[in-house]
Amino acid sequence: MFPVSQAAYDDAIKKQDIIQITTATIRQIVALSNHLEDVVGEKFVHLEMGNPGLPPCKVGAQAEATALAKGIASIYPNTAGIPELKQNGSEFLRAFLDIEVPPRCIIPTVGSMQATFTTQLLLGQRQPGRNTFLLLTPGFPAQQHQAKILGYKTVSLDIYDCRGEALEARLEKILSKGDVTAILYNNPNNPAWTNLTDTEYRIMARLAEKYDVIIMEDLAYMGMDFRQNYGVPYEAPFIPTIAKYTDRYILFVSASKIFSYAGQRIAMVCMSPTVADRRYDFFENFYEMPRLIDAYVFGVLYCASSGVAHSPQYAFAEMMRASYEGRVNFVADCSEYGRRAAIAKKMFLDNGFHIVYAFDGDQPISDGFFFTVGYGNMGSADLQNTLMRYGISTISLNSTGSVQRGLRVCVSLLSDEETFNNLEKRLVAFHKDYPL
Amino acid sequence: MFPVSQAAYDDAIKKQDIIQITTATIRQIVALSNHLEDVVGEKFVHLEMGNPGLPPCKVGAQAEATALAKGIASIYPNTAGIPELKQNGSEFLRAFLDIEVPPRCIIPTVGSMQATFTTQLLLGQRQPGRNTFLLLTPGFPAQQHQAKILGYKTVSLDIYDCRGEALEARLEKILSKGDVTAILYNNPNNPAWTNLTDTEYRIMARLAEKYDVIIMEDLAYMGMDFRQNYGVPYEAPFIPTIAKYTDRYILFVSASKIFSYAGQRIAMVCMSPTVADRRYDFFENFYEMPRLIDAYVFGVLYCASSGVAHSPQYAFAEMMRASYEGRVNFVADCSEYGRRAAIAKKMFLDNGFHIVYAFDGDQPISDGFFFTVGYGNMGSADLQNTLMRYGISTISLNSTGSVQRGLRVCVSLLSDEETFNNLEKRLVAFHKDYPL
Repeated sequence: MFPVSQAAYDDAIKKQDIIQITTATIRQIVALSNHLEDVVGEKFVHLEMGNPGLPPCKVGAQAEATALAKGIASIYPNTAGIPELKQNGSEFLRAFLDIEVPPRCIIPTVGSMQATFTTQLLLGQRQPGRNTFLLLTPGFPAQQHQAKILGYKTVSLDIYDCRGEALEARLEKILSKGDVTAILYNNPNNPAWTNLTDTEYRIMARLAEKYDVIIMEDLAYMGMDFRQNYGVPYEAPFIPTIAKYTDRYILFVSASKIFSYAGQRIAMVCMSPTVADRRYDFFENFYEMPRLIDAYVFGVLYCASSGVAHSPQYAFAEMMRASYEGRVNFVADCSEYGRRAAIAKKMFLDNGFHIVYAFDGDQPISDGFFFTVGYGNMGSADLQNTLMRYGISTISLNSTGSVQRGLRVCVSLLSDEETFNNLEKRLVAFHKDYPL
Repeated sequence: MFPVSQAAYDDAIKKQDIIQITTATIRQIVALSNHLEDVVGEKFVHLEMGNPGLPPCKVGAQAEATALAKGIASIYPNTAGIPELKQNGSEFLRAFLDIEVPPRCIIPTVGSMQATFTTQLLLGQRQPGRNTFLLLTPGFPAQQHQAKILGYKTVSLDIYDCRGEALEARLEKILSKGDVTAILYNNPNNPAWTNLTDTEYRIMARLAEKYDVIIMEDLAYMGMDFRQNYGVPYEAPFIPTIAKYTDRYILFVSASKIFSYAGQRIAMVCMSPTVADRRYDFFENFYEMPRLIDAYVFGVLYCASSGVAHSPQYAFAEMMRASYEGRVNFVADCSEYGRRAAIAKKMFLDNGFHIVYAFDGDQPISDGFFFTVGYGNMGSADLQNTLMRYGISTISLNSTGSVQRGLRVCVSLLSDEETFNNLEKRLVAFHKDYPL
């Protein structure tokens, strides 16, 4: 029976070795909710996990089976990627982002996780004194951990109160110190589901050029701003990207969410030729290869895993081809997340919650994979703990680098009526017990 | 026509940006030989590359296709590995190494390359002041690069003149300084194809315990000491391992060579429970997880790639099961390399070459994937350059950390009569032109 008693809850927290709920890892939160499910004998509503909640794109699995049947398992993959992935990746970017990235500048990685880990490793080395990463927050917590593990520094910029023109002064203040090597963000934003505006892109591009900074754009959820239809290849509107504003970019495109293919760990790093071909003294001395792309592929990626498993590369290549040939509409396939978000958002709003990150410019944010909620002035820890007692599992905004009060809600596992009904019932009960 | 003229050769070297042949990467040597093939219009004998030269184990590809058909592509893999891989890995070690490693201590990685990269990252952190890796050389050059990229120090110990009891004093001298966190080696040795003796294992185990050092044993070529038949599960002789001598070990078992499965990038890290469960202050503070295995899986591996692609994990699990159930004999399958080595070695010896690393104790080394050759007092650079001009591509012992004069020969691509005939013809011509 929900709510779980405070005593039983405190006991569960203790058993999971959780010291502070707002900084606990997602894995710890999952373990806590699983434990409480056993205690209560009822299922939780899991809004904490970001597993794709849709079946995998079939084209991918078929391409893998075909490649395996041809015997590709015995030969080391080229660290720079198979030609099919490089070519189809280039075409995919042309079709949906309307940008030109040559195949040689497209490199597969073991998910975007390996991509941001290894590119951070490299970008932290490129110039003496530049080993700080500027993270636009809220963001994906793992990317901050990656910088930390690599021995690099991070600074965060919470976009909550500096959208639009206000971004310029805040960015300028940080970048003018000269120690930032790169700016890293996700767009659409994980977890706020905001999308950068034209004004914001222009400011970032201008300042990146002014201060010799590289922009790392994580497009894990590309196309999932459902206010527009980005799903038609070679036709406007195209998916917005920093690559339209400057050539100082590295893009990360993952198959995990857009093709529901997280299990096979496949993504691609896409560099502008300007970034790829720039020569650095450090790379020449350290890797004996002055060009950034060579140092990355043959210096870093080779050492990190000797490239990426062959068959997932074929899967990704074929899924992208099917997309630009119009046989797969990944945007339409993912629009299910928008539908789920619209329903869930209404349930939260009807029960006294508000959206924390609510606007892009003057436009309300899109419905999508995530959104953020607050409840009156309730602190993040209080809100997260209390909702847990009511059978709703979330993560705190603090853990995503945000300094706002509130929680991240992920709709990927809201897959059936019963789960929605449970969510509504429990939100109603919570709202009744904790009136604003 | 071979030999290539000195002028044409010098021109090719220049075109490939090779400054020093003995420290060029394998990729550069491949590019050089490919270029020379175009110049001469004849194929090289490629002894430089370590690609598996056999077809992949069929059980693996079938298991992947089955898993993909079940839809595993959409779900993030558990970072600690799928249960099948952990259980079958444990049983595989029991059957062929006669050791007990619990499933929880077995963790999949994106090839052994990711395994040694990520475990080095971790072991360099475990205790203040201990961030040096002792590499037994000759060895796999990438492992030294990994330490360097991670900002760690390495010391090398060339085993050439300290086999048997002589190892103790040399090891003691290095370890007594107290800055070594781990000893890393491959067995059978890449590239010398030596195998550690019982005496040497005892010395290493004793000193590892005395100086609180962890032993990292890379078993990439396990079972391929063909002087013994290690291919019968649950029956002696068992594949030798440091795990029989001490519990301070981390083993690396890769599917790349034993199952000719390099293309799918799958291996496993196997820790003793003693290593896995040890608590460290640094890990508690840095990862908020004191136990080494937790810091490794949820701290390092999660950040490196969010685990390993699902389908290759199923492949590896099923190939190991087929082996301990006696349906696949990986040792017999790989014995083809021994056959090729025996023929190639005779050709080198008949033409004035000698084996550089020739003995394990009083036993001549096994035939296998690699061997090492020298030619009179000819220096490594001279010998490598000259053989290149005769259409034989190799890498220098220097690049493997050895301080001996000579070359590494890999037999994996010696797959047909014509290639063997070319090798013999060219060695005869070289020997005639450069008499000892």
